[in-house]
Amino acid sequence: MVNASVITIGDELLIGQVIDTNSAFIARELNKAGIPVIRRVAVGDSGDEIWKALDEEGQHADIILITGGLGPTADDITKPLLCKYFNGKMIINGSALANVKNIFETILKRPMIERNLKQAEVPDVCKVIQNKRGTAPGMWFEKDGKVFISMPGVPHEMKGMMEEVIPLLGLRFKTGFIAHRTLLTSGAGESYLAEMIQEFEEALPSYIRLAYLPNYGMVRLRLSISGLVMGNLENELEEKFTLLQSLVNDYIVTNEDEPIESVVGKLLKKKNKTMCTAESCTGGYIAHLITSLPGSSAYFNSGIVSYSYKAKEDLLEVDEQTLLKEGAVSEAVVIAMAKGGLKKMKSDYIIAVSGIMGPGGGMTDKPVGTVWMATGKIDKIITQKFFFRFDRERNITLTAVNALNMLRKFMEENG
Amino acid sequence: MVNASVITIGDELLIGQVIDTNSAFIARELNKAGIPVIRRVAVGDSGDEIWKALDEEGQHADIILITGGLGPTADDITKPLLCKYFNGKMIINGSALANVKNIFETILKRPMIERNLKQAEVPDVCKVIQNKRGTAPGMWFEKDGKVFISMPGVPHEMKGMMEEVIPLLGLRFKTGFIAHRTLLTSGAGESYLAEMIQEFEEALPSYIRLAYLPNYGMVRLRLSISGLVMGNLENELEEKFTLLQSLVNDYIVTNEDEPIESVVGKLLKKKNKTMCTAESCTGGYIAHLITSLPGSSAYFNSGIVSYSYKAKEDLLEVDEQTLLKEGAVSEAVVIAMAKGGLKKMKSDYIIAVSGIMGPGGGMTDKPVGTVWMATGKIDKIITQKFFFRFDRERNITLTAVNALNMLRKFMEENG
Repeated sequence: MVNASVITIGDELLIGQVIDTNSAFIARELNKAGIPVIRRVAVGDSGDEIWKALDEEGQHADIILITGGLGPTADDITKPLLCKYFNGKMIINGSALANVKNIFETILKRPMIERNLKQAEVPDVCKVIQNKRGTAPGMWFEKDGKVFISMPGVPHEMKGMMEEVIPLLGLRFKTGFIAHRTLLTSGAGESYLAEMIQEFEEALPSYIRLAYLPNYGMVRLRLSISGLVMGNLENELEEKFTLLQSLVNDYIVTNEDEPIESVVGKLLKKKNKTMCTAESCTGGYIAHLITSLPGSSAYFNSGIVSYSYKAKEDLLEVDEQTLLKEGAVSEAVVIAMAKGGLKKMKSDYIIAVSGIMGPGGGMTDKPVGTVWMATGKIDKIITQKFFFRFDRERNITLTAVNALNMLRKFMEENG
Repeated sequence: MVNASVITIGDELLIGQVIDTNSAFIARELNKAGIPVIRRVAVGDSGDEIWKALDEEGQHADIILITGGLGPTADDITKPLLCKYFNGKMIINGSALANVKNIFETILKRPMIERNLKQAEVPDVCKVIQNKRGTAPGMWFEKDGKVFISMPGVPHEMKGMMEEVIPLLGLRFKTGFIAHRTLLTSGAGESYLAEMIQEFEEALPSYIRLAYLPNYGMVRLRLSISGLVMGNLENELEEKFTLLQSLVNDYIVTNEDEPIESVVGKLLKKKNKTMCTAESCTGGYIAHLITSLPGSSAYFNSGIVSYSYKAKEDLLEVDEQTLLKEGAVSEAVVIAMAKGGLKKMKSDYIIAVSGIMGPGGGMTDKPVGTVWMATGKIDKIITQKFFFRFDRERNITLTAVNALNMLRKFMEENG
């Protein structure tokens, strides 16, 4: 089966200044096209290191996808290096030049300088892949039956270019069949699930793999199948996936590879109901997760981020006495936030959260990580207390994910 | 100079199901400790691929940090493989066993099963690194003068373990000196900046590197220095950094490596002022960015996510006629949102945004990517129209970052 390796280039990846999201995107697209990714490598803006990576990945894989180092500044060394590696010489490419000119004249409306024109130069030994979203052209090289494709590191430029690259790879190689089915569970640990499905797992054929992906107190179970041709593989995967679902039925959140906010959104759409949020400690993150999905305006009305005591009183009608007596992180306050929020925001369901995310703000009786959550509808509000032991970022995410899951369960159990 | 390579293990990294944040964290910590990372490699849950990666990275680097594949389920194959690779045999480690028991008995309060006890087994040829945040112990191997360290893939467990690993590496190796200074600029493109500082860049000695990192319409400039001992390097970096700042002075947003929400937060603290948000299209993301920083409750009061027309009327007192006549994405509506928001949320400054993030919702006169922003204070509101040409996720981020930058400029120019 033809396979691929991804090389990402840039010192920022090796000093931890940016998180590499390009590789994940490229891997997803290649998988969908039936091309497994077997390795991903990141190297710095160093000629030697890039050269070694080209040599090595050319040994490991059939297709080598490269991102980064194509910009107009001195730290962008990928293009001259590829030119040397593939024994080419630099020439101006007509269509790349037209693209650069067009971008400056009609989109950026800025004067072009010499440095920008250089973007249209490419090694004469490559095929140019047009960049519809930027000035740096993509380059397709071949050597000893292997294909090397160089793309810009700017994510949206790379994404646009992948739309061209995938069909070209389909023409050039005989690709295989890869498929995944993923189940999201909550309420059972990884070891406990493994015991429950041990027989199932042991009986899987070698070309079907099961993976456990624990995250945010939930566990994803993923079945993957691969082969040279589709044949019966798709049906076989569906069969096993149905069996797996029946074995862990009590713990299933969703049988799609989707985040919890998508599960909640679908439930609301099915019921033709709306929701709103009253957030303290998550500071708008729950509303953000919900509205990150296209079409969320059909079921999400509004949210209130009541960060201060005063905001809880003014915007959600939480009683001042309750705040002073119980403190902002209390069952009484999240109930008041939920009731006030439903009244103000006129929605069917609400999520209300208040907690201490850290690192500061902890108290003896309410240490960092203490969170009260309320969810429900006008005639029924339920509450739950959580305790998360992590850093601020993770505590915020855990609060959001668990609050959304609490609303999901509420909707399933209470209609 | 002693250097490192990072190997991350897991099929999920190669099918693009998760984004690898571990490598960036590890790279940051190693850099701080004076150990440059020269490569990062991701491989799947495959014995062959892991073995090859151990061989290769052992050639490239002095220190090889490995994460992933240490869980209690069948897809976790790293530990037995390392045992074989380093010619060990499995033994129960007393302190690791005590740790597993303690976690189940006092933290999880769940019965322990055979599978969990297995977590305490390690190869007899390694030193154990305790895992304070989970059951899988870390392992330190040595071979031909190279150090291989295996850690769990769960981010918060790995982060806890790195606190032990860094001082151990400091004892074992003679580490070097690495330092970075980063400048965030806005208002000038990458090529234009490069022209402005060309002479400066060409005069840099070989051990100081300059990098351009464009993102969200801004450009970061990073100076990096490295050497065997600190000597005068720190002073030299400061000198060059001061010179660089003077060259691009008109475009500087901050001279720290920090996000725009941190710049805004510091300005508010300095002025002893507060802010609030009235968000439509960003759905709470601006409030989330601000409140993701510890201490933000000192200057952030509250936010309103007015996603629907009705919410804009009810929560922000936007006039129904204005909404119907001008549409939600209009200058008149963001001004009304800003004024209503300041009144309702009683803060000194406000950011208000309304736009069409896509993929749906575009109109002939207001295509996807159209955004109106308003910012200011009770006696002065300014507005600006933006047009972003990307996908929903990127449009939301661009809107948030540009709105925060607009408030920053407003505060600097208007007090």
